[in-house]
Amino acid sequence: MISAKDILEKVASGEMTPEEAELQLKMKPFVDLGFAKPDLHRGLRQGVPEVIYGEGKTPEQIDKITASLLEGGQETVLITRVSAEKAAALTTPVKYYDVARIGVAGKIPEPSAKGTIVVATGGTSDLPVAEEAAVTAELLGNKVERVYDVGVSGLHRLLAQKDKLMSASVIIAVAGMEGALASVIGGLVDCPVIAVPTSVGYGASFEGLTALLAMMNSCASGVTVVNIDNGFGAGYSASMINHIGG
Amino acid sequence: MISAKDILEKVASGEMTPEEAELQLKMKPFVDLGFAKPDLHRGLRQGVPEVIYGEGKTPEQIDKITASLLEGGQETVLITRVSAEKAAALTTPVKYYDVARIGVAGKIPEPSAKGTIVVATGGTSDLPVAEEAAVTAELLGNKVERVYDVGVSGLHRLLAQKDKLMSASVIIAVAGMEGALASVIGGLVDCPVIAVPTSVGYGASFEGLTALLAMMNSCASGVTVVNIDNGFGAGYSASMINHIGG
Amino acid sequence: MISAKDILEKVASGEMTPEEAELQLKMKPFVDLGFAKPDLHRGLRQGVPEVIYGEGKTPEQIDKITASLLEGGQETVLITRVSAEKAAALTTPVKYYDVARIGVAGKIPEPSAKGTIVVATGGTSDLPVAEEAAVTAELLGNKVERVYDVGVSGLHRLLAQKDKLMSASVIIAVAGMEGALASVIGGLVDCPVIAVPTSVGYGASFEGLTALLAMMNSCASGVTVVNIDNGFGAGYSASMINHIGG
Amino acid sequence: MISAKDILEKVASGEMTPEEAELQLKMKPFVDLGFAKPDLHRGLRQGVPEVIYGEGKTPEQIDKITASLLEGGQETVLITRVSAEKAAALTTPVKYYDVARIGVAGKIPEPSAKGTIVVATGGTSDLPVAEEAAVTAELLGNKVERVYDVGVSGLHRLLAQKDKLMSASVIIAVAGMEGALASVIGGLVDCPVIAVPTSVGYGASFEGLTALLAMMNSCASGVTVVNIDNGFGAGYSASMINHIGG
Amino acid sequence: MISAKDILEKVASGEMTPEEAELQLKMKPFVDLGFAKPDLHRGLRQGVPEVIYGEGKTPEQIDKITASLLEGGQETVLITRVSAEKAAALTTPVKYYDVARIGVAGKIPEPSAKGTIVVATGGTSDLPVAEEAAVTAELLGNKVERVYDVGVSGLHRLLAQKDKLMSASVIIAVAGMEGALASVIGGLVDCPVIAVPTSVGYGASFEGLTALLAMMNSCASGVTVVNIDNGFGAGYSASMINHIGG
Amino acid sequence: MISAKDILEKVASGEMTPEEAELQLKMKPFVDLGFAKPDLHRGLRQGVPEVIYGEGKTPEQIDKITASLLEGGQETVLITRVSAEKAAALTTPVKYYDVARIGVAGKIPEPSAKGTIVVATGGTSDLPVAEEAAVTAELLGNKVERVYDVGVSGLHRLLAQKDKLMSASVIIAVAGMEGALASVIGGLVDCPVIAVPTSVGYGASFEGLTALLAMMNSCASGVTVVNIDNGFGAGYSASMINHIGG
Amino acid sequence: MISAKDILEKVASGEMTPEEAELQLKMKPFVDLGFAKPDLHRGLRQGVPEVIYGEGKTPEQIDKITASLLEGGQETVLITRVSAEKAAALTTPVKYYDVARIGVAGKIPEPSAKGTIVVATGGTSDLPVAEEAAVTAELLGNKVERVYDVGVSGLHRLLAQKDKLMSASVIIAVAGMEGALASVIGGLVDCPVIAVPTSVGYGASFEGLTALLAMMNSCASGVTVVNIDNGFGAGYSASMINHIGG
Amino acid sequence: MISAKDILEKVASGEMTPEEAELQLKMKPFVDLGFAKPDLHRGLRQGVPEVIYGEGKTPEQIDKITASLLEGGQETVLITRVSAEKAAALTTPVKYYDVARIGVAGKIPEPSAKGTIVVATGGTSDLPVAEEAAVTAELLGNKVERVYDVGVSGLHRLLAQKDKLMSASVIIAVAGMEGALASVIGGLVDCPVIAVPTSVGYGASFEGLTALLAMMNSCASGVTVVNIDNGFGAGYSASMINHIGG
Repeated sequence: MISAKDILEKVASGEMTPEEAELQLKMKPFVDLGFAKPDLHRGLRQGVPEVIYGEGKTPEQIDKITASLLEGGQETVLITRVSAEKAAALTTPVKYYDVARIGVAGKIPEPSAKGTIVVATGGTSDLPVAEEAAVTAELLGNKVERVYDVGVSGLHRLLAQKDKLMSASVIIAVAGMEGALASVIGGLVDCPVIAVPTSVGYGASFEGLTALLAMMNSCASGVTVVNIDNGFGAGYSASMINHIGG
Repeated sequence: MISAKDILEKVASGEMTPEEAELQLKMKPFVDLGFAKPDLHRGLRQGVPEVIYGEGKTPEQIDKITASLLEGGQETVLITRVSAEKAAALTTPVKYYDVARIGVAGKIPEPSAKGTIVVATGGTSDLPVAEEAAVTAELLGNKVERVYDVGVSGLHRLLAQKDKLMSASVIIAVAGMEGALASVIGGLVDCPVIAVPTSVGYGASFEGLTALLAMMNSCASGVTVVNIDNGFGAGYSASMINHIGG
Repeated sequence: MISAKDILEKVASGEMTPEEAELQLKMKPFVDLGFAKPDLHRGLRQGVPEVIYGEGKTPEQIDKITASLLEGGQETVLITRVSAEKAAALTTPVKYYDVARIGVAGKIPEPSAKGTIVVATGGTSDLPVAEEAAVTAELLGNKVERVYDVGVSGLHRLLAQKDKLMSASVIIAVAGMEGALASVIGGLVDCPVIAVPTSVGYGASFEGLTALLAMMNSCASGVTVVNIDNGFGAGYSASMINHIGG
Repeated sequence: MISAKDILEKVASGEMTPEEAELQLKMKPFVDLGFAKPDLHRGLRQGVPEVIYGEGKTPEQIDKITASLLEGGQETVLITRVSAEKAAALTTPVKYYDVARIGVAGKIPEPSAKGTIVVATGGTSDLPVAEEAAVTAELLGNKVERVYDVGVSGLHRLLAQKDKLMSASVIIAVAGMEGALASVIGGLVDCPVIAVPTSVGYGASFEGLTALLAMMNSCASGVTVVNIDNGFGAGYSASMINHIGG
Repeated sequence: MISAKDILEKVASGEMTPEEAELQLKMKPFVDLGFAKPDLHRGLRQGVPEVIYGEGKTPEQIDKITASLLEGGQETVLITRVSAEKAAALTTPVKYYDVARIGVAGKIPEPSAKGTIVVATGGTSDLPVAEEAAVTAELLGNKVERVYDVGVSGLHRLLAQKDKLMSASVIIAVAGMEGALASVIGGLVDCPVIAVPTSVGYGASFEGLTALLAMMNSCASGVTVVNIDNGFGAGYSASMINHIGG
Repeated sequence: MISAKDILEKVASGEMTPEEAELQLKMKPFVDLGFAKPDLHRGLRQGVPEVIYGEGKTPEQIDKITASLLEGGQETVLITRVSAEKAAALTTPVKYYDVARIGVAGKIPEPSAKGTIVVATGGTSDLPVAEEAAVTAELLGNKVERVYDVGVSGLHRLLAQKDKLMSASVIIAVAGMEGALASVIGGLVDCPVIAVPTSVGYGASFEGLTALLAMMNSCASGVTVVNIDNGFGAGYSASMINHIGG
Repeated sequence: MISAKDILEKVASGEMTPEEAELQLKMKPFVDLGFAKPDLHRGLRQGVPEVIYGEGKTPEQIDKITASLLEGGQETVLITRVSAEKAAALTTPVKYYDVARIGVAGKIPEPSAKGTIVVATGGTSDLPVAEEAAVTAELLGNKVERVYDVGVSGLHRLLAQKDKLMSASVIIAVAGMEGALASVIGGLVDCPVIAVPTSVGYGASFEGLTALLAMMNSCASGVTVVNIDNGFGAGYSASMINHIGG
Repeated sequence: MISAKDILEKVASGEMTPEEAELQLKMKPFVDLGFAKPDLHRGLRQGVPEVIYGEGKTPEQIDKITASLLEGGQETVLITRVSAEKAAALTTPVKYYDVARIGVAGKIPEPSAKGTIVVATGGTSDLPVAEEAAVTAELLGNKVERVYDVGVSGLHRLLAQKDKLMSASVIIAVAGMEGALASVIGGLVDCPVIAVPTSVGYGASFEGLTALLAMMNSCASGVTVVNIDNGFGAGYSASMINHIGG
C-alpha cells in the first residue's frame, strides 16, 4: 500500500490522474468476503496480524478467512475459541492446542522479544483461560513461563515461585472466585500485571463478575484488567508490552 | 421470668388459676415504650444483653431505652452508631469511643473468655469499622489485639504479624476495595475468620459491594461474612465464638 | 516440617550449612502434579486436611490428588461436588454420600468435639446443600443434628424444634427464597449461626442472590454468611467453631 | 357526568345534536391547570378521591390543585410526602400528621369499613413509612391498629401481638433490612398481607432493594408487595380490600 | 387441636397432669415424613389448606405428602408446578390442568365467594402464568373470568373488556415485557389489582425483572405485586381478598 | 369501520337506535381466537399491518392468526422470530428468510419510500439481528443497503463506506460488545441513527447489556436505542421515519 | 472547507503543491481552545450546529466556546444544562429558558420543518426534561405542541388529547416511574415515538432505570429510547426526523 | 536491608546469633505509625516508591507519613487525591497540581524513560482524571503528551492527532459516557492502550460503570482497563510499561 503523500506526488508528476488518486485513497485495505472483511493491513497498522475469533463461525468461514489472510501475505494466522471438532473440520492445515482451544495456520514464530511473560493461575479450573493467554503469547513471539495453581489460600505455593515472578517482564494473573491473586502478585513484583478474571466459581461469583470487580479495585498499583475469560486479550497485550523491551 | 413448666405446676397445685397462668404465658418480656420495645430478656435468651442501634434515634429515645434496660437489670448497655454530638447530648452517663462511634452506659466488663480476638485491617481508612468491631468485642468481655494497615499489596507487613494471627482464637478481617485480606488470612490460620467488607474505595468498589462479593467467594475455607461496614456484627459473632472456648 | 528457629539453631551448631538451611526454608510443602499442587501441610497449618473440590476435575485427576494426599500422610480425604457417576469412576475406594455429593477416601473420623452442630433448612429443596454441610461437619469430626423443612411460613414447625436449636453449639441455617430462617433462628438462640443462602426459588430469587442479601442484612446479631449453596464452607467453619469448645 | 348511553338517548330524542353529543363524549373530566390536570372523576371511577403527591410540588401548586378538587366537589383531599415546612406554607387549612408527612384538607372521614387494618413494623426506624400507611388508611375510612417494633429477631414480641394480628382484616407489614417480618406474619394469619419494604438499613440493604426482593420471594402465601417506602400505596390498597368486606 | 386455655383448664380440673399438658402444648401439628413436614393445621390457621409445590419433588414424594394431607382430613390438595409427565406418574388420582401445570387431588370445590376474580394478560405467551392464577383461584372456591391478550399496545382490545373489568372484585394483571398492563388497568378500576410480572420477553426484559420493577412503580394506586411468574401466589391472594366480601 | 360521528348522525337521523349505536361503538376491531386477539385495524390506526411474533407460538396458532389477518383484508403478514423448522411446518405458504428468521405470507411489497435505510454491523456475528432489521424494513416497503463487518477496531473499513452512510435516510447500527459503532456513525452523519445492541460477546458483555448501556450514553446526538437483538423494532421504526420523507 | 476531490484537482492543475494539499487534507476543522476543541464543521457534516453541554463548564469556558462558534459562522448556539445562576454570569447575551435550563445565543430560528413535534409527559415532575426536549426542538426549527400530565393512571386525560397525538409528525414521550406512557402512546399513533425515561420516582424506580428498561421493552412497535433525563437528545433526534418530511 | 542468605552466612560465621538472625528475618521493612505502616522498601521491591493516597487522611497524617518516607530515604513522595485546601494545610513543602489534585514532596524527577506516554480524553469533563494520569506519569519519570477533547462523535478531531498517537509508547485513553474512545484508539495504534473509564455522564452512565463495561468489551485488542476515575493507576501502569523500553 502506498502512502497518501506518494499518491499526491504521483498526481503532481502526472503519473496518476486525480480520479485514480481518489480511488487509491479510498481503496479498501481489506478483503470483502461478504460475511466478513478480513483486515490485510493490521500487521502494518498494529504490528500484529489479524486474528480470527472462531466462536460462531463455521469451518467454511474460517477456512475462507484464513486463506484470504495467508494469500494477503500474513505468515501466521491464529484462530481462537475454536473447539476440537471445529478444528478437525477445517481443510486448512492447523496445529491445534486443545486446552487453549487455539488453532494456528502457517508458520509458528520464534520468540522475538527478550523478556519472559509469566502466566499464573489461582486454581486448576483456570487452566483453559491461562493456556489461551500463554499460547497466544507464544504464537506472537514470546517466551512464556507457566506458574499454575498458586491461589492465595495457600500462600506458600505462590511465595515458592517468587523468583520466577520477580524475573518476569510482564505477568498475567488468571483467577476466578475472589480474584485476589492479582493483588497479591501486584504487591510482590515491579513489572506490569494483567489480570484476567475467570468465570470459575459458583453462586455469588456471578460467572466472573466478582473477580472482575475485585481485580478492578486491586489495592496494588500496576494492575490492569481485561474481560472475563479473555485469555487472548491478556496474551496479546502482554506481548505488546514485552516487545517494547526489544 | 418463670418457665412454662413452673407455671403449669403452680396451676396443678392450685397456686395459680388457669386465667393467671394464661396471662403469665403471654406476659411480654419487653418494655413497651410506644416507639420501641426494648427486649429485657435477651440476656437470658441469647447470653448477650440488648444493644441500642443509635442511628436514627434521638438522644431522648436513647436515654429512655437505656434507662429501661438498666432498670430491667442489664448491667452494660452498648449504644452503637452514635455520633460524638449525639453522645454529648445524652443525659445518661456514657463512656464514648470516638473512632468506633460507640457509647457505653453502666459497667465496663472484664474479659470473660480465654482466647484473643484479632482485628486486622487492609488500610487506614478501614479504622472506624475495625474499631467498632474491636470495641464491641471488648465490651462483650473479650481480649482484643489490633493489627492494622496490613493490606495484601505489601504482603510483608501482614507476614510480619503472623505470630499474632496464628495465636488468635477468632480473627476479624476488615477490608474495602477488593477485600483480598480475608482470603490471605484465611489461608494462613486455623481459626474462624469473620470478614467485614468496608465501603472504602471508589468507582467499581460500589460502596463495599465488590469487597462483599469477593469475601463471599473466598478461596480460603473458614471464612464467613457480615454486612458492609458491620463492625458491630463481626465483634458480636466473634465474641460468641470466643466464649465457646470458655 | 521443622520450624525456622530450629533450622537456624542447626546452622549455628553446624548441623546444617547455610545453603541447606536456605533450601529447607524454601522447600515446598506441596506436591506439584503439574495441573495441581496439593497442599500437604494444610493439616499442620490449618488443623484441617486438604479437601478436593471435585467439580470440573476428571476422575483421573481426583485419583491422583487423593493418592498424593494419602501418601503424604493425610488420613481422610474429602472430595466435594462430585457426581455419583464421577464417584463410581474413581479407582480410589470411597464412601459416597449421594444427597451431599461428597466422597470420602481413607478413615471416617469419630466425633472429636464435644458440642453438636445443628443443620436446619427452610424447605425440602434445600436438602442437597444442607447435607453437604452436615456430611462435611461429620467428616471433620462433629456430631450433627438435622432439623429439616422448618421454614418460617409455618413457624410452629420451627418452634417445635426449639430444644434442639437451644442446645446446639453452632447452627447452620440453610434457606433459599427470602432466607428469613437465619434471622428467626438468630433471634432465638445464643450460639453462632452460619447462614447458607441456597439457589432454591425462581423469578426474583435470582438464583440465591436474594437470600444472600437478606441473610447479610439479618436483624439478628450473631449471624454470618457464606456463598450461595456453599454447604461445604458452612460445615467447615462450623467445625472450626465447634472445636474451639474442645 | 352523564353516561354514554344517556347521551345517545338524548340524541335519539332530539334533545342533543350529534355535534353536541360528540363534544360531550370528548369532554375532559379533569381541570387543566397547565402544570397539572387534577382528576375530578376519580371518585366516581375508582371509589377513592384524587390524592396529591406533594413531593416536588410548590405550596402554590398544592394550594391550586387542592382548591380545584374541593371546588370540584371532593370532600377530603390527602396531600402526601409533604414536609412540615411546606405544609406550614400552604394557605389551604390542613390538618398535618408529622411522622406520616401527610396533610389533609376538608373533612376527616369516619371509618366506613367494618374490619380493622393492622400496621406492623420491624423496627423503630420504619415508623415514618408505617405512619404514612396508617394515616392514609384512616383518612380513607378505616379503623387502624398499630403494632410497632416487632421484628423477627425477638419473636416473642411479635407472638405477644398474635391476637391483634389474627383479628385483622388486612395486615400491612413494614420492614427494612432483610424484610423477614412479612413472611413470618404471612405464615401466622389468614388475611391478606401487604408488605412494604423500607429503605432502613445500610450496606447490602441497598436502600430497601434487599427487603423488596426478600418480600417478593416470601415463602408464605398471601403476601403481595408495594414499592420501597410506599406507605401510601399500602394504605390505599389495604383500604380497598378492607372495604370489600362492607 | 385444643386451645392453650382448654389445656390449662384440664390441668386445673385434674383431667390432665402438668407433664401431659406440657407435651400437648408442644405437640407438633404436622406430620414428619423425614424429607418434609406437611402442615395439617394450615386450614385452621390460615383458612386455606396446605398446597404442594411440585417443582423438584419426585412423584413418590408428592404421593406421600398428598396421602398424609388427605388422611389428615384435608378435602382438596393442590399440587402446583407439576409437569404432565410427573402428574401421570402419580399413583394418587388427580385432575390435571395442563396449561396451568396444576394437579388436584380430592374434591373440586364449588365457588364459595360472591365476587368474581378477573385474570387479564398482556399477550398470548403469558397464558401459563395466567392459567396458574386462574385455576388456583377456582380451586380455592372463586368464580374466575379470563380476559386474555389485551396488552396496552392495542388499547381498544382492553377498553372493549371494560365492563368485565369494572365488575370484578379483584383483578390479576399478568404481563411481561414492560408490564404496563397493571398500571392501565389500575387506573381504570376501583378494585384491588394484583400484578404478576412474567418472564416473557427478551434482552433487557431480564427474565421478568423489568416487568417486576415497572409494576412496583405503577403510577396507579391499588396495585400490589407478586414474584415473577407467581401465578399461584396471585390466585391465592386474590382468593383471600375475594372471600372477605363473603 | 365507521367513525363515531357517522354513528351519531345515523342515530340522529333514526337510521340507528341508541342501543345499536352503543353496540357499534363497543364493537371489537379484532378477531377473538381465544388464545389471541389479532388486531385487524392496526393498518388503519398505525399505517403498518399487524405483525406476528413467532417465538413461543405453535405452527397451528401462527396459521390461524395469519389466516384471520389475510381474511381481514391485510395484504402482507410478517412472522418474526420463526425457526426454519417452524416455518416449514406452516400450512400457509410463506417466503422464508433464514438468517433473519422471518417468514412472510401474502404479497411482497414494492419500496414505497424514496429514501434508503442503511443497516451497518460491527461484526459477522451481528448478522442475524441485522438481517431481521433489513428484511423487516424491506417488507415494510423500503430500499435497504447493507454495510456489514465495519466495527470500530478497523476504522478504515467503516470510513471506506462513508458515501453509503452519508446518503442514507436513516441508519440502523447493529453492534454487540462495547457498541461503539453507533457513536462513531452518529458522529459522521446527519440522519437519525437507530442503535441495536446485540447479545454478541462474552463475560462482561452481559448478553448485550453493556452494548445497550453504551449506546444509551452515546456522545453523538441523534442516536436512539431499541432493545437487545430487536432487529424488528429497529427496522419498523426506521421504516416509519423513512416514510415521513414520502 | 474544500473537498478531497477539489484538492486533488488543484494539485493536478498545479494550483497547489502536494505538500500544501497534504496539509489541507489534515487541516483541523475545529478550534483548539486547549480545554476544548469546538467543532466548526458540524453544521456542514451533520446539518445541525455544535451545541454546548453546560454542565461542569465555567461561565468563562462557555463564553469562549460560544464566541468561537459565533465567529466560526454558526448563527445559533444552544447551551444546555445551564443553571439560571450560570446563565446570568455569562457575558455573551443569551435568551434563557428556565424550566428547560437552556440558554441560546445568536439568532432564534423560525420553524423550518412542516410537521409538528408533540411532547407528552406522564406527570408534573417530568416538566424539566420535557421542556428541555421541547425548547431544543423549537430552537432547531420545529413547531412543538405540549401535552403534559397525561399519565396512564388516568387514561381519559390521554385519550382526550388523541387528536393532537394523531396529527403529530414525531412524538416525544417523557415519563418516570414505570414509563408506561411510551407504550400506550406507541399503540395509538402511526408516527415514530421517542421515549425519554426520567429520574422521577422513588425506591425501585432506581433514578430512572426502571422507566428506561420498561421503555426498552415496549410492546408497541415504533418506540426508540434515549438516556434517562436526556430531553436534549430526544428533541435533537425528533428534529432530525421531522426535517426528513421537508 | 540484607538478604536472607547474608543473614544465614553471618549465623554460620558466628557474626550473628540465631536469635538475632531470627529477629532480623522478622524485622519489619516498614515504619509503624500506629494508624499506618508506610512501606520503606517498596522502591526496592517494586521499582517505584510508596505513594500516599490522600483521600480520608488528615493533613497531620499526611505530614507524618511523608516525613517518615523522606527520612527513610525516598527522594520523591507523591500525594494523590488531595484537595487544594488540604495541600495548603500541610507543613511539608509540596508542589501542588490543582487539576490533577496531586501534591509532590521532595525532588521532581527528570524523564528516565525514552518513550512518550500519550494521555487522550473524550471530553473536557474528563480533564481531572486525565491530569491525574499525566502528572503521575511525569512524576514517575516519563515524557507525557496530552491530546484532549477528541471524543469519537467528532472523529476528525481524533484523526487529526493520529501522528501523536502513532508515535506513543503507551496510550492512556480517558473517557466517560460510552467510553468508545478506547476502542477507536485501540484499533488505530500498535502500542498498549490503558483505558480509564470516568464518572462523567448522567442517567444510564451509572457513574462510570457503563464506560468501564464498554472498555472491558473493547473489540480492539491491546486494551486493558483500570478502575473508574483511576488516573493514578493508569499513569503508574503506563510508566511501568514505558520503562521496559529503557
